[in-house]
Amino acid sequence: MAGRSGDVGADERWMGAALALAERGRGRTAPNPGVGCVIVKNGRVIGRGWTQPGGRPHAEAMALTQAGEEARGATAYTTLEPCAHGSARGPDCSGSLVAAGIGRTVIALGDPDPRTNGRGIARLREAGVEVVDGIRAAEARRSMAGFLTRRARGRPIVTLKLALSLDGCIAMADGESRWITGPEARAHGHLERARHEAILVGRGTLLADAPRLDVRLRGLEDRSPRKILLSLNPQSGWTSIPQPVNIASLAGVDHLLIEGGAQAASSFLRADLVDRLLLYRAPLLIGGGKPALGDIGLASLADAHGRWELTDARMLGRDRLEVYERASN
Amino acid sequence: MAGRSGDVGADERWMGAALALAERGRGRTAPNPGVGCVIVKNGRVIGRGWTQPGGRPHAEAMALTQAGEEARGATAYTTLEPCAHGSARGPDCSGSLVAAGIGRTVIALGDPDPRTNGRGIARLREAGVEVVDGIRAAEARRSMAGFLTRRARGRPIVTLKLALSLDGCIAMADGESRWITGPEARAHGHLERARHEAILVGRGTLLADAPRLDVRLRGLEDRSPRKILLSLNPQSGWTSIPQPVNIASLAGVDHLLIEGGAQAASSFLRADLVDRLLLYRAPLLIGGGKPALGDIGLASLADAHGRWELTDARMLGRDRLEVYERASN
Repeated sequence: MAGRSGDVGADERWMGAALALAERGRGRTAPNPGVGCVIVKNGRVIGRGWTQPGGRPHAEAMALTQAGEEARGATAYTTLEPCAHGSARGPDCSGSLVAAGIGRTVIALGDPDPRTNGRGIARLREAGVEVVDGIRAAEARRSMAGFLTRRARGRPIVTLKLALSLDGCIAMADGESRWITGPEARAHGHLERARHEAILVGRGTLLADAPRLDVRLRGLEDRSPRKILLSLNPQSGWTSIPQPVNIASLAGVDHLLIEGGAQAASSFLRADLVDRLLLYRAPLLIGGGKPALGDIGLASLADAHGRWELTDARMLGRDRLEVYERASN
Repeated sequence: MAGRSGDVGADERWMGAALALAERGRGRTAPNPGVGCVIVKNGRVIGRGWTQPGGRPHAEAMALTQAGEEARGATAYTTLEPCAHGSARGPDCSGSLVAAGIGRTVIALGDPDPRTNGRGIARLREAGVEVVDGIRAAEARRSMAGFLTRRARGRPIVTLKLALSLDGCIAMADGESRWITGPEARAHGHLERARHEAILVGRGTLLADAPRLDVRLRGLEDRSPRKILLSLNPQSGWTSIPQPVNIASLAGVDHLLIEGGAQAASSFLRADLVDRLLLYRAPLLIGGGKPALGDIGLASLADAHGRWELTDARMLGRDRLEVYERASN
């Protein structure tokens, strides 16, 4: 039965619910990770929470508020170790779980923040709360990849989006690129925008396409990300950075989406600053069109192998989306 | 039970066996279609046949020889309407089926040859043989696409093979292309060679790569196809044609495989002479490499849509094979 010690199948399932809730905050919780939490008692959900925009309240605080008095003796599922550090913006979550009388806590991933990093779990255990760790950790790692990349590499996680023909063109030779992919793929592209704090384009794309880069999905219009320009010359309405490496300075940006053009994409690949590829491929041939990429600094074919791992693929109408991630080897 | 009237499920299954046998002759039966045949009695196969190299004996003749006296009262499954025209190279198959006492014949596809075209079926029915037609016709049409294209368009069916990176390059900028795809994809490419009577390359590929274009698969070495060169200048050891349209004159070639390079591929696409795309895509980026195609005469993106239909896809090691066919609309 859900919530009882040792029932791993149920633990995995409830953690799945917490992981799904975590997605709601994607692209809006920086500098905090987007965490999800469900509180379960007698097989019934009594509290649901996810990190709110700007990073507070935390997921556990939101779920505990919903659960109220019922939390006593319940099990909390959370995608990240509850924090051990209070702040002016809220109390620490491990303390709050203890205070609410939670009997058991199931955690996907330890918190790399040095202020927590095991101390949240220790505090729970000291107070007599049973703690299970490492449930669906790989998925939690992917779900918080922006936060973790910022922690580990001092920069946002970078996704490069390309909408291509079968022969790898992103436009006709004369620049015509509307539309290579169909409406389903374009809608998915807008959804991906909503999951990023910022979108970057190069100067060529700015001048050629004057892209709006907003989220044109009903109900998500307010999720349009910040607009970043890769350029030596500032542009009004845009945040400009001169070089790919300057993404480190983009405060509040843990997820960066690169939308074009070939030159901007190539300069990020050359700098080894792309973590994820979103390839939308349409079932058509262009021939002699604009290639997706320019020189990316590849010395030989052998160096090209083993860098990318296919992690997701699906049809979107007649187009195919493939997601590749930096290989972990 | 198999072979009994009205048992469509069994008819479909036995026709599947006939279709599989037909594949054995692929690329070797021109000018005849590659047909498969099984003869079934009391749920047991008593004869199997497929069109032999050069087109004779026919599949039905081979299967009837195997079945011998047992053929009396049995059911014959054949992927193409049995011929109604005898020749110096063999008797007509509809007559042979009648003479052998076959009680029922199940056919996938009618024969467009004006010498048969319904007359094979008529002759069987006149002799009291029960005939069922149209079972798995679409698969039979695909299986005999070379023959049918020669009949309908006066030329072989043309398959364009491309081995690509994710960004649509077929080589590095300096020409390095060994290897983009892995051993599984390359082995599949050799298998496809064995299924074609001829392979074509352009002059640039001849000079740059001096390709052997043979089948390097154990047991299939003798299946290496004829070598065709797209060039105004004859070359010893090669059949030269000056223009894509000249494929019509390639006697004994019902399946033509184009292996490169970009210029030859583009000239066939420009002439609308490509029926099938074999895309082997490796999970790597090249950037600024040699594009798969040059100008294919596309006037606008709108014209590019709806031309290709995905008909098969599979992983080959880390690479992905996609097969597209000319859309039937």
